[in-house]
Amino acid sequence: MPPFILLRSIALCISLSFASSAVAKERADMIIYGDYVLSMEEGAGVLKNGAVAVRDGVILAVGSRRDIEAQYSAWKTIHGKDKVLMPGLINGHTHAAMVLFRGMADDMTLIDWLQNYIFPMEGKFVDEDFIRAGASLACWEMIRGGTTTIVDMYFYPQVAAEIYQQCGIRAILGAPMIDYPSPGFTGWDDSFAAGRAFVQNFNDPMGRLTPAFAPHGAYTVVPEHLREVLAAAKELNAPMMMHVAESPSEMDVMAERYGNSSVRHIAGLGMLDFPLIAAHMVWPDEDEMDMLALSNVGPIHNPTSNMKTAAGFSPVPQMLAKGINVGLGTDGAASNNDLDMWEEIRLAALLHKGKSGDATIMPANTALAMATRIGARAIGLGDVVGSLSPGKRADMIQLSLTSPRMAPLYDIESHLVYVAGAHDVVTSIIDGQLLMRDGHVLTLSAAQVTKDAKVQAGKIRKALSAEK
Amino acid sequence: MPPFILLRSIALCISLSFASSAVAKERADMIIYGDYVLSMEEGAGVLKNGAVAVRDGVILAVGSRRDIEAQYSAWKTIHGKDKVLMPGLINGHTHAAMVLFRGMADDMTLIDWLQNYIFPMEGKFVDEDFIRAGASLACWEMIRGGTTTIVDMYFYPQVAAEIYQQCGIRAILGAPMIDYPSPGFTGWDDSFAAGRAFVQNFNDPMGRLTPAFAPHGAYTVVPEHLREVLAAAKELNAPMMMHVAESPSEMDVMAERYGNSSVRHIAGLGMLDFPLIAAHMVWPDEDEMDMLALSNVGPIHNPTSNMKTAAGFSPVPQMLAKGINVGLGTDGAASNNDLDMWEEIRLAALLHKGKSGDATIMPANTALAMATRIGARAIGLGDVVGSLSPGKRADMIQLSLTSPRMAPLYDIESHLVYVAGAHDVVTSIIDGQLLMRDGHVLTLSAAQVTKDAKVQAGKIRKALSAEK
Repeated sequence: MPPFILLRSIALCISLSFASSAVAKERADMIIYGDYVLSMEEGAGVLKNGAVAVRDGVILAVGSRRDIEAQYSAWKTIHGKDKVLMPGLINGHTHAAMVLFRGMADDMTLIDWLQNYIFPMEGKFVDEDFIRAGASLACWEMIRGGTTTIVDMYFYPQVAAEIYQQCGIRAILGAPMIDYPSPGFTGWDDSFAAGRAFVQNFNDPMGRLTPAFAPHGAYTVVPEHLREVLAAAKELNAPMMMHVAESPSEMDVMAERYGNSSVRHIAGLGMLDFPLIAAHMVWPDEDEMDMLALSNVGPIHNPTSNMKTAAGFSPVPQMLAKGINVGLGTDGAASNNDLDMWEEIRLAALLHKGKSGDATIMPANTALAMATRIGARAIGLGDVVGSLSPGKRADMIQLSLTSPRMAPLYDIESHLVYVAGAHDVVTSIIDGQLLMRDGHVLTLSAAQVTKDAKVQAGKIRKALSAEK
Repeated sequence: MPPFILLRSIALCISLSFASSAVAKERADMIIYGDYVLSMEEGAGVLKNGAVAVRDGVILAVGSRRDIEAQYSAWKTIHGKDKVLMPGLINGHTHAAMVLFRGMADDMTLIDWLQNYIFPMEGKFVDEDFIRAGASLACWEMIRGGTTTIVDMYFYPQVAAEIYQQCGIRAILGAPMIDYPSPGFTGWDDSFAAGRAFVQNFNDPMGRLTPAFAPHGAYTVVPEHLREVLAAAKELNAPMMMHVAESPSEMDVMAERYGNSSVRHIAGLGMLDFPLIAAHMVWPDEDEMDMLALSNVGPIHNPTSNMKTAAGFSPVPQMLAKGINVGLGTDGAASNNDLDMWEEIRLAALLHKGKSGDATIMPANTALAMATRIGARAIGLGDVVGSLSPGKRADMIQLSLTSPRMAPLYDIESHLVYVAGAHDVVTSIIDGQLLMRDGHVLTLSAAQVTKDAKVQAGKIRKALSAEK
């Protein structure tokens, strides 16, 4: 025991000599402090000068600095001066490795973008190396910005899983399956078989990764195939994720092909009764929202992507008012063009005020909850993460409040929503493991991920200019 | 002459010994480089490996590194490795010192916000010290984020002018005038008289500041007073700035009181024929946009503020299509809650796609132009700033491209609009004067502006809790 620790223990024992708890303090692995602590439990508000005790990757207790220090001792502490401590953010829908297409093609119609840029380049370049480079870059950016859980839907999920294990992020990995040819597959049969095998054989010793079924969408997978997915998901007890009711063009296709909307179509297949992460959900009608409220569906709002691709504005306040757990996501960086959840939080808070004409409709706290507590429920991890609550996994972040942009400070939640950005995040912890300290990501090298991304981008750039 | 400079000169003389221009290079004060240079002249695109020569605060030439170095010599150079060089951003509408109300009150109706928070606190606390602290904090944030020109409308403009002179920012300062009591004034007569005197007596030895008349709005200033303003503006040849057609409640008041819309009302007063910076402009109809296209009005789009206060979505693409010069602004930080023009650029690019259902309606380059070339025209400084053009003032910024968030890089304009933020800006230059280097603002102390802001906020916080 180093002398200064010994002295501190003696001092504590003396100062607390009348309290029997002082000599029988519970052991914690780590105590993390915050001048402001947002547990993000419902109605909990902001705790000033607080702390969180962590052991074996689990949150033991959240309370005032004084209470936590009276009850717990820990060898490792992370100070909280001029910092806010809160749950890590949950990116409920992304295609992580698509970050390698960031800015490759913008400001064009969805059809032009997909058919002339994304699909051809995916067909040519998405392989295991692409996924390694893309998932690594995406993880660096997401950990740097305070995201601790992601819901990822992209090719070669077994390769992405290796990257996520190495960098330490928590993830639900959807194995993509679609009726058309896609990287590595000729169509439905092999993509479904590979996805099923991925889910069935998945093994994650760290317990942070969850395999899932990811049928692309109701307009790209025929009903009998969606039924196969649902049966397999039930059999293997794995969640599903899918794009649902994203764009006017999807709604047109569904109306023409099935005489139905996307939500009613998949409801008819029984897909609303089993956990389903439903990305985008821009176009549910009133009755469909009532159906969603009674279902196991977690819609994910992707405001930047929905604007950038001109998909429309999702009726998020209406869904929340009906008790639906609506999470937040960045979508892939190809249609965003970054993976900054703070921008999604801010946009969620702003957009619906502008659309509704009601400035009270989406308070700052609600937007924050969509990226934490409510978002965790939307993706089926409501008991695991999303708030700083005893028994939940210790996924948390600290933001620095020292920038002049954060002055003055009247309301910490307001600043988190309307001012904060990825660069204000300084600490990231998952399962009690420190992934970022002082703004430096510890599990990935910024230089290496940039270098690897450039190698992949070089090939893509060459192919783009050859086609021009 | 230091030895390495001597050697370099000799080497240059040898390598260029056949070119007579090598020995007769024109003197520049400074050459600034950029791996990518965006002049933001119409249709100019992106120049790779470029440079800008500056003398006496004016841009001499923009060209390739090789051409600029062949023609100009300068003792001072600023390297451009991994940087983009572009014009400084133009914040076309703000209330700078209101940054001290940042996050004081959010997510409430406009009436509640104004009547129960902003107006009472302004009445109690806005004095010269408040303006000094607020304008300093705002300038720090704006210079840090790459804004080089601001259009400011707030109380005690003569005090703000002192701060702007000290920190070196370019500004149009509107003297506020309103029919109701306001900080320092009992109503119209004294606010107009003081504003007129401010404009008439204004003296700025550096030439970066322009005084202006700032009647608050058509619903808060009666027609005869607006006529007074117009006459005085013409007499003193000073521009006007005003909130115009901002919110549904303004439109309701105008319809009830005058049986007219805001734009038609001020058109009837002759205010469209003289330079007018028209903040917000959310609710012009088709005919009014045609009138604006023939006028001297520069509408300023404030997307964040318009969403946050639930004012609505301005028909920006329609105005641009009619040839109207629409600029961009942050509004005051009380309704934003920061002064980051990159967020406004990104929102301008995203919002109108989502609203129109057309992903091609607002290309990245247009959003950038609104914050530079077009924005400069909107505020009447189109010949002075807004692009890197020979003869214009040397207002320019560099952004770093080294963050993994900027990888890969296919399209620099895409990254500037959809990825970049204030923290990526590393250099700011106004009139050839270096205001920020390596991300450090040179003319203001971050610690001091934060400290001064906290002093003011302490008083406000006390008053807020006393009222609860």
